[in-house]
Amino acid sequence: MQEFALIDRLRTRLRSKRLDTCLGIGDDAALIAPPAGQELAVTTDTLIAGRHFPVDTAAFDIGYKAAAVNLSDLAAMGAQPAWLTLALAAPELSQDWCDAFIDGVEAGIGPASVDIIGGDTTRGPLTITVTAIGHVPAGRAIRRDGARAGQLVVVTGTFGDAAYGLSVWPDRMEAPDADRDLLLARLCRPQWRPGVGLIGYASAAIDVSDGLAADLGHVLAASGIGATINVDALPTSDALAQLLPDRAARQRLQLSGGDDYELCLTLDEHDLPGARRAMDCPLTVIGRTNTSGALRLVDDDANSVDRLGDTHAGWDHFA
Amino acid sequence: MQEFALIDRLRTRLRSKRLDTCLGIGDDAALIAPPAGQELAVTTDTLIAGRHFPVDTAAFDIGYKAAAVNLSDLAAMGAQPAWLTLALAAPELSQDWCDAFIDGVEAGIGPASVDIIGGDTTRGPLTITVTAIGHVPAGRAIRRDGARAGQLVVVTGTFGDAAYGLSVWPDRMEAPDADRDLLLARLCRPQWRPGVGLIGYASAAIDVSDGLAADLGHVLAASGIGATINVDALPTSDALAQLLPDRAARQRLQLSGGDDYELCLTLDEHDLPGARRAMDCPLTVIGRTNTSGALRLVDDDANSVDRLGDTHAGWDHFA
Repeated sequence: MQEFALIDRLRTRLRSKRLDTCLGIGDDAALIAPPAGQELAVTTDTLIAGRHFPVDTAAFDIGYKAAAVNLSDLAAMGAQPAWLTLALAAPELSQDWCDAFIDGVEAGIGPASVDIIGGDTTRGPLTITVTAIGHVPAGRAIRRDGARAGQLVVVTGTFGDAAYGLSVWPDRMEAPDADRDLLLARLCRPQWRPGVGLIGYASAAIDVSDGLAADLGHVLAASGIGATINVDALPTSDALAQLLPDRAARQRLQLSGGDDYELCLTLDEHDLPGARRAMDCPLTVIGRTNTSGALRLVDDDANSVDRLGDTHAGWDHFA
Repeated sequence: MQEFALIDRLRTRLRSKRLDTCLGIGDDAALIAPPAGQELAVTTDTLIAGRHFPVDTAAFDIGYKAAAVNLSDLAAMGAQPAWLTLALAAPELSQDWCDAFIDGVEAGIGPASVDIIGGDTTRGPLTITVTAIGHVPAGRAIRRDGARAGQLVVVTGTFGDAAYGLSVWPDRMEAPDADRDLLLARLCRPQWRPGVGLIGYASAAIDVSDGLAADLGHVLAASGIGATINVDALPTSDALAQLLPDRAARQRLQLSGGDDYELCLTLDEHDLPGARRAMDCPLTVIGRTNTSGALRLVDDDANSVDRLGDTHAGWDHFA
């Protein structure tokens, strides 16, 4: 497929849904009209074949994940996603691959009103870079550095599913197994959690892409505080509990495995009911912040436990 | 170098220069406050080693070009550049490479007030994706589809230099030659042309990255018109005239060679003096638009000439 033919095809498929998109794909730059009284949140994430997804991932799933991981970053700021650009390098592009990829991007966006306003296609090793832009009322964005000692540490959804999905990737063509396939789906099509409803409740938030311990660590470091987490409180899917019954091994995976794209936040205890009403997904309290400056793990009996070992640093692309 | 150490280093080096950058590198997303009454122009370009620059290009020059090609896209809309994000995949990163790369990005930005507000680093084949964001008074952006029949076709700077530079890349280590080195510099460190001053004068504009004939062709197609270009009027650097004295060969290079990152625009004849005053670089009239729907090339004697042959389509990454 020729580059210009591909761009024409994208342009035809990706009609604008937003009135504040003044000019979409096809010129030197897109034009958008930011809503008055709002700041814009801007984030960029790159996905590389063999590093961020297995090389034999389906085009649909690659598109899905590329959209979702960026919208998850906006969600963690409390921003409403609105626009994204898509830079795609691929060894070659068929129309089928391209259509499936864009279907995946649109599924990853889901019901949110998000326009794809620009992009670049080029020949090269399979690499996708998405830049996502959202809006948030001026001064109200949820940052990493706003957590205070004495607050609850809360997470959305369940943890460890995507990491387990990655570990059983080689078995994905075997006889269907409902639990395994569910965890594979969590890996390939992560469900980002809209974060707009957390404004006014959460004091800090981060999306968990590098592992819960590492990402919570970023919040604690930025805020200059510490926390104690109860590893027995980590929210666990039935599928993961079934497939990985060894509790300590499972908790290690839940703390250091990446790719869940759930949110981790801090809030005052009296704001928990409001946050629960505002969010369309389960919220689980897993611990409490303190002034210690360190992350401590305990069990249900308040005994210290080690579930991190050498993995504490989480995912580092140059380690 | 560890990814988090690298991000910390970038964060320290890239202090914000703009009051409307509310939050820079280091959170899930950056926060910017768009100026009231302005639209934002958003563009994304990817550079891949061996495709957009020779694999043995210096880190400084890679950074320079990654910034310049994106700011050139904003310029072609008449937008004032303000922010950019930087996604970098590299097989490995040393501190020296990284510092030289960022030095290059900053040199490519030049005196413009542009903040680097976000990014992503990951291990992979050397690939840089920049998203640039600028602002332009609402409704005043210069688009590709605004050209009208009977207007002048005007270009900034000189053409063919970068394409010739690429052709002599293998000889770059030989004894210094002032002309050759100048054309190599045009290839490695393209000078983008601020386009804000063209608002109110230019009816259409494009930045020439894929070759003058191909890019002017995009303007003509989007505007539904044609043009006649005098190939003897193409602005030519002394260095290129010296090194490529064959006029027809030189004109072929000037029409189909990419990477010059000059602007090509259309305007009414009476707006030419104003545009000249507004721009800090030479403007050359190379032809005139008409209703023909086609691009015709003539010489000084108004005879039709062929300078395109098979290269008319310009640069297509999947051709």
